[in-house]
Amino acid sequence: MHHRGELTVPTRGRGTYDITSAVRDIVKKSGSRDGLATVWIHHTSASLIVCENADPAVRRDLDAFFARLVPDGDKLFSHDDEGPDDMPAHVRSVLTQTSIGIPIANGALVLGTWQGLYLWEHRTHAHERRITVTILGE
Amino acid sequence: MHHRGELTVPTRGRGTYDITSAVRDIVKKSGSRDGLATVWIHHTSASLIVCENADPAVRRDLDAFFARLVPDGDKLFSHDDEGPDDMPAHVRSVLTQTSIGIPIANGALVLGTWQGLYLWEHRTHAHERRITVTILGE
Amino acid sequence: MHHRGELTVPTRGRGTYDITSAVRDIVKKSGSRDGLATVWIHHTSASLIVCENADPAVRRDLDAFFARLVPDGDKLFSHDDEGPDDMPAHVRSVLTQTSIGIPIANGALVLGTWQGLYLWEHRTHAHERRITVTILGE
Repeated sequence: MHHRGELTVPTRGRGTYDITSAVRDIVKKSGSRDGLATVWIHHTSASLIVCENADPAVRRDLDAFFARLVPDGDKLFSHDDEGPDDMPAHVRSVLTQTSIGIPIANGALVLGTWQGLYLWEHRTHAHERRITVTILGE
Repeated sequence: MHHRGELTVPTRGRGTYDITSAVRDIVKKSGSRDGLATVWIHHTSASLIVCENADPAVRRDLDAFFARLVPDGDKLFSHDDEGPDDMPAHVRSVLTQTSIGIPIANGALVLGTWQGLYLWEHRTHAHERRITVTILGE
Repeated sequence: MHHRGELTVPTRGRGTYDITSAVRDIVKKSGSRDGLATVWIHHTSASLIVCENADPAVRRDLDAFFARLVPDGDKLFSHDDEGPDDMPAHVRSVLTQTSIGIPIANGALVLGTWQGLYLWEHRTHAHERRITVTILGE
């Protein structure tokens, strides 16, 4: 079987947004029992990560780490058409994921207890982000 | 066709563990001739990488690089419930892979000569890690 | 359905090489209408990224960032059999992607307006790089 689901996520600027439930809903709607859900984000300045889902400090620390690793306004960057967070957003996207393939078993995503799926907005301003979920299997 | 295989890897603490043969065995058992094997790790403090499989120094250097890039006990991190390697393990996982999709041709994984598939344990203590392999194709 | 396409990319040394059209051609040839195209690179010193495709400065800045993050000839590295860019090429590959899964809808890759798919050569010398595209769906 093949099923395609779409998702639009309005962000309020830089930070992580939990999309686990929304992707679970797409899997449920597809009727798939066993297979693979491949999540794809249509952007190069926002990305996907699987991250610990219990303590919000984990995602705050993660953002602090990336802010230090890829500083906004770094003199190294010549591409800053859309501001000091423009090029860092592209670098952060390349360092994380544009696609993630998650197993489906017994009609549900196979996620570890502490695994959540997040959209990571890397721009400081709000954006509307598009995601496509491709489901293959039985 | 769809087939799902599971794998449990007992780690002895931080380091890379070759899972290529174990994933090859799952592909063989599935009877798939042509398709895709998507490997998924159920954790956020251990991850997957494809790495050079000939010289062990490559994986030692890789660990040295990540130890410098994401230092244990970094004052930047507030989340340290499980020790100085807790938050670094999450960051290292985000910088590497939770899922990898490898082609299957003629009943075997299509890997380059120097490619090995590794589980990377990011915690300093031993853990039991779970992996699911989803096989789709013919 | 299942289809496998292959691609050989001759590189002229370190830098990004646009493979979007070549992968589009493989999808077209496969006759797939809806599904998933999973791109796989057979190497551990060249990798795959999805990146902004309009301003070449983005990819120049990206390379500048990685050259600073993972410097050639770093004293930290013991593995340098093939030169000062040997181990950095492996680290850069681990920090980016070996496989990427892109949705197919209406017979075409579902890419955002600014998304391009690139092979990133991390070695300073020219190489011939192999890519396999696995197509699953309808």
